[in-house]
Formats: sequence, structure tokens, C-alpha cells
Amino acid sequence: MKNLYSLALVYENGRLRVLNQQKLPYEEEWLLCKNPFDMVSMIQHLQVRGAPLIGIAAALALAQYAETGVSKEQILQIAKRLAEARPTAVNLPYCISCLMQVYSKNWNVQALVDEAERLFEEDACLSNAIAKHGASLIQSGDFILTHCNTGGLVTTGIGTALGAIIQAHYEGKQIHVYVDETRPLLQGARLTCWELVSHNIPHTLICDNMTAALMAKGMIHKIIVGADRIAVNGDTANKIGTYSLAVLARVHNIPFYIAAPRTTIDSNCPSGEEIVVEERQAIEVRGIAGFPVNLEWAPAKTKTFNPAFDVTPVNLISGFITDAGISRDIKEVIHG
Amino acid sequence: MKNLYSLALVYENGRLRVLNQQKLPYEEEWLLCKNPFDMVSMIQHLQVRGAPLIGIAAALALAQYAETGVSKEQILQIAKRLAEARPTAVNLPYCISCLMQVYSKNWNVQALVDEAERLFEEDACLSNAIAKHGASLIQSGDFILTHCNTGGLVTTGIGTALGAIIQAHYEGKQIHVYVDETRPLLQGARLTCWELVSHNIPHTLICDNMTAALMAKGMIHKIIVGADRIAVNGDTANKIGTYSLAVLARVHNIPFYIAAPRTTIDSNCPSGEEIVVEERQAIEVRGIAGFPVNLEWAPAKTKTFNPAFDVTPVNLISGFITDAGISRDIKEVIHG
Repeated sequence: MKNLYSLALVYENGRLRVLNQQKLPYEEEWLLCKNPFDMVSMIQHLQVRGAPLIGIAAALALAQYAETGVSKEQILQIAKRLAEARPTAVNLPYCISCLMQVYSKNWNVQALVDEAERLFEEDACLSNAIAKHGASLIQSGDFILTHCNTGGLVTTGIGTALGAIIQAHYEGKQIHVYVDETRPLLQGARLTCWELVSHNIPHTLICDNMTAALMAKGMIHKIIVGADRIAVNGDTANKIGTYSLAVLARVHNIPFYIAAPRTTIDSNCPSGEEIVVEERQAIEVRGIAGFPVNLEWAPAKTKTFNPAFDVTPVNLISGFITDAGISRDIKEVIHG
Repeated sequence: MKNLYSLALVYENGRLRVLNQQKLPYEEEWLLCKNPFDMVSMIQHLQVRGAPLIGIAAALALAQYAETGVSKEQILQIAKRLAEARPTAVNLPYCISCLMQVYSKNWNVQALVDEAERLFEEDACLSNAIAKHGASLIQSGDFILTHCNTGGLVTTGIGTALGAIIQAHYEGKQIHVYVDETRPLLQGARLTCWELVSHNIPHTLICDNMTAALMAKGMIHKIIVGADRIAVNGDTANKIGTYSLAVLARVHNIPFYIAAPRTTIDSNCPSGEEIVVEERQAIEVRGIAGFPVNLEWAPAKTKTFNPAFDVTPVNLISGFITDAGISRDIKEVIHG
């Protein structure tokens, strides 16, 4: 496989490395992925995270594994294992199925490797296209709220929702970003702020429960977030808290955009009702899970509920920003 | 002053002590208040917290100080200092002005002390009355969401919003409580859960950004929260995040109740627009401030916004639960 470089995923001279997103912003630690089992573990422990990136990372891990000369059966078995590492994002099974499709034609390892390289480069192109389209919605003077982290850390390019914001900044627009911290895993506070600092983009961190009060004061002009899975009818699964923002945006008459590559659309999923939402461990809600220590501040006897995602119905979405452009209507996105 | 006992505030044999709410649930540490300056500091550092309790705590500190034989001028000066320890809750200036009113008649220290004792006992009666009225709204089988902490820790009685829930439990109703963690100071996760564990009431802790998703799934039947200041028109200031819940409740057709003593109504405040919202330190949003350590997970260069409260317009409030009963109309509460 040839050398491939992105902000949080690098393949260089036979070594696959990921930037450990659990350690950011404290430390920029690169983890070596020696085999696909390492990658499954890194995906499950959110060291690699973000719907697009985990798909590409899994594809590279599988290609690297295939190149070691293992059997067809081993490749098929590991492909399944990688595809099931996390349940909600569609990109992971999508990327693995792309590899399997070309590989299954005549069990040619080089074809599988070529496809992994193609996916890596395609993801950069897709996110850069999304960012450009998204930036066209942003005007100088805008105060934009975003949720979770959807920048260069989760794609091989500039990012999706955060990519649009970064792109607008580099186009010379004077913008200000409100970042909600995104409990429980604090991707907003830790990762989005880390990216915004590195791009020198003016931003303000707030807690998740402050967004409505800011909207009521007219302090937020636009909301742009990513997506983990988009159903055929446009219902969108994304990081927990997204649905809340969409409802509040509607009440306060604020445009609410989803930014994601068209590969996020799951053609097997007719509506949000069919989307399986992953439930995660109690420790994440009871305190913090490894940022940089494990710490629980709730009483030991207290139970928790920890859905990782929620589903926003399509009627609350002002528009979809995809690699193909901006559209109010998901049917238009799907059928071009 | 006679001996007075409540869950988080005790006066016994001349010693005024408060349960340090910053240390809960890790540790039950009692702090000795030797003089009113101690109390100002404890209020500002949220070691004593909750609108009703800080008023009573300040009153006891002033009464204790008056009993040491200081001059009238000193008492007046310290009264002003205590009344201004925190800006948003009305109970603090209310309690101090009650003491000043009786004291200013003929500068009789015993009258001031009697009034402090009366306020302590009145607060218990008020919250117990609120809890009884509030419990009448709760049915067996209800799943109730509450925000922040409004139980025995913030009054000298059973509590206000959480008091109603605790009361319903002791009336034998089968209830389940959803507790949102209430960032940034985590009063839900730390304090409400601590109280619910101690009463053995079934409950589930969630993050603040999960409430809307639960509402959409029909998992929440009622929302009951407290108040820090109620304007004459019914607009209500309460812990940041309250307004968000009120908007989401309205959209999901869930009753949203404010529970507070009538003393929380500020007759000098015509509407929510006049309520001053306290802004607190960045460290609280950048991480955790002392639970049990200081820890920042956001980048050092990231700015924050940290309003401690927000204002919920009266049109989003289904009813006011006060010591006088339940009313949809704030005018009815004010004029009886």
C-alpha cells in the first residue's frame, strides 16, 4: 500500500498509525496498528472515531492485513469483524463492503489494496467538497454552533460540518464558533476546540444545556452538525444531543444543517425508526472516562442511561450539505 | 440562638456548621462558620448552595454575628455584604431584609435572632408544604425528570421540586426519576443522585443533552424543577438548562412545573428581562472545578461562556407549585 497522510490517520512505509483521540488535547499520541485486532480495539475504545474515519481506518487495517499473505478465509473473517466493530455509523460496513466487492471478483489482494487507497483519497475529496459547499452557506459575521467533532480528525480531508466552518474561515469570512462540549465524551470541548485553536478560529466553549439560552438571545445564527447514518427518508442519526439542537433550532427559527458525504446515506434503512442506537458504558455518564483519568462523581449506586446517538427527523433539517451540493430534499441528494 | 437542624445546615450550641456541597458525594465534610466572612466565602464557593438555603444560612450567620456584641454599624455593614454574596437568587436579600426590618425597629439583637430562627423554621414549613402540593401532581408509574438539586440539601425541610418527588415516594407511589447531570457544576449527578440514593428512590442519571431524545421516546411524563427568582409576570430564573427543558417539554407536550416558595417571587422585578444572570468562572466549563479535583480538558487557549442561570418565560410553565398550592397563573399565586 502506498503512503497515505491525514490529520489523524497515517500509513507510511508499511506502518499504520492513528492519532489517539482519547488523549487529545492533553497529548498528541500516535498509536501503531499492527493488525486488524488492534484496529477493532481502537475503534471500540474511540481512539479512532468519527463516522468517515473509522470506515477508512478499518479499510487500511484490512488492506495491510491482506498484504501479509493471509488466506482468503482469514481476510473474509477479519472483514466481518471490522465491519461490526461499532454499530451506528454506516461508513464502517460501507468501506469494508467496497473492499469485499472488488476482492471477491477474483480474490486479488492488490485490487483490495487499491480500493483501500481509493477510499482514503475519495474521503478527502468528499469532505473537501462538503466543506466548500457548506462554506457557501456561511457569511461574514455569522455565529455558528456546532456539536461533537466533525473536522480533520474524523475524515482524511478538512472535515464535514466543522470542515465547512474551517473552509469559511480560510475564505476570509469573519466568523465565531460556539462549541458545545458534547457530553459524555466531550468531543466538542476536547477535539473541536483543539482543531479551532490550531486554525486560530475565534470560538467559545459552552455546556450542552446552554445552547437554548444562547438561541433565545439571538447569539446563534446557524447550526451545522455531522451525521453517522442518514435514512432514505432523511431522518438522521448523529451524536447524542443533535436532536435536542434540531428541536431548539426550529423553535428559535435558526437554520439547522446536516453535513455528510452521500456515503452516509444507508439505502437499506427506510427511516430513523430502523436505526440501531448504540448504548455505551455507565462510567462515561457517571464521570469522565479517561480524559485524562477515569473519575466518577455520581454515587456508586446510581444507574445511568447512555445512548451514543439520537435520531433527528427529517422535518427538522433545513438542508443537507453533501459532496454533491446543498439540498433541502434528501430525495434530490439520493437521485441526484 | 437556639439549636436548629437540617440536612445541610446546623446550628448547635453556638456552632454554625454547613455540609460542604462541593465535596458531595465523595465525602460528607462539615464546615464550621466562625463569622459572616466565612459564610460569604462559602456561598460564593457554592459550599452552601440552593436559593432557599443560602438565604437561611446567611441569616443564621448574621444572627450569630449579632450575638457576639458587635455594633449596630457593623451589623448593617455585614448584612449588606451577605445580601450581595450572590446576585441571582432573591431569597438571600429577602432573608437579610427580614432581619433588618425587625432589627431596625429598635436595634434589638434578640429580635434579629428570633427572626433568623423564624426564617429557618418557616423555610422547613414552606418546603414541606410545596412537597405535599407537588406530590399531588405525581401518580404511580410516573417517570419524572428533574434538573439541578432542589431537595433537602437546599432547604431546611424536604426540598422543593425534588421534595415533591421524595414526598410522592413516601406516599407509596411507584415513581422513577431521571436526573440530568446539570453541567457545569453537576448538582444533578452529585447531589440529587446522592439524595435519591439516601431515600432509596429508583433513578437514572443522564447527560443534559439526552433529555430531548428521552422525551421523544415518551420516557418522561413530567418535569419538575426549582426556581431562583420569579418575576411578577411569572418569568422564572433557574439553573442554566432549565429554559432548554421548558422549550423541549412544550414541543413534546410534557407538563413542566416550577416548584418554589412564594418568597422566590421578586415583587421588584416585573419580568424576566430585568433578571441579572450571574456569569461564573471559565474553569467550570473548561473542565471540573473541584469534584473532587480541578481538571481542565479543553485547550488552554479556548474561551468559554458560563451563565449560571437562564430565564424561562411564563408561557412555557404549566404550573407553579408553591407553599400555597398549585396554580397555572402567577397572579393567583401573588394575590392569593
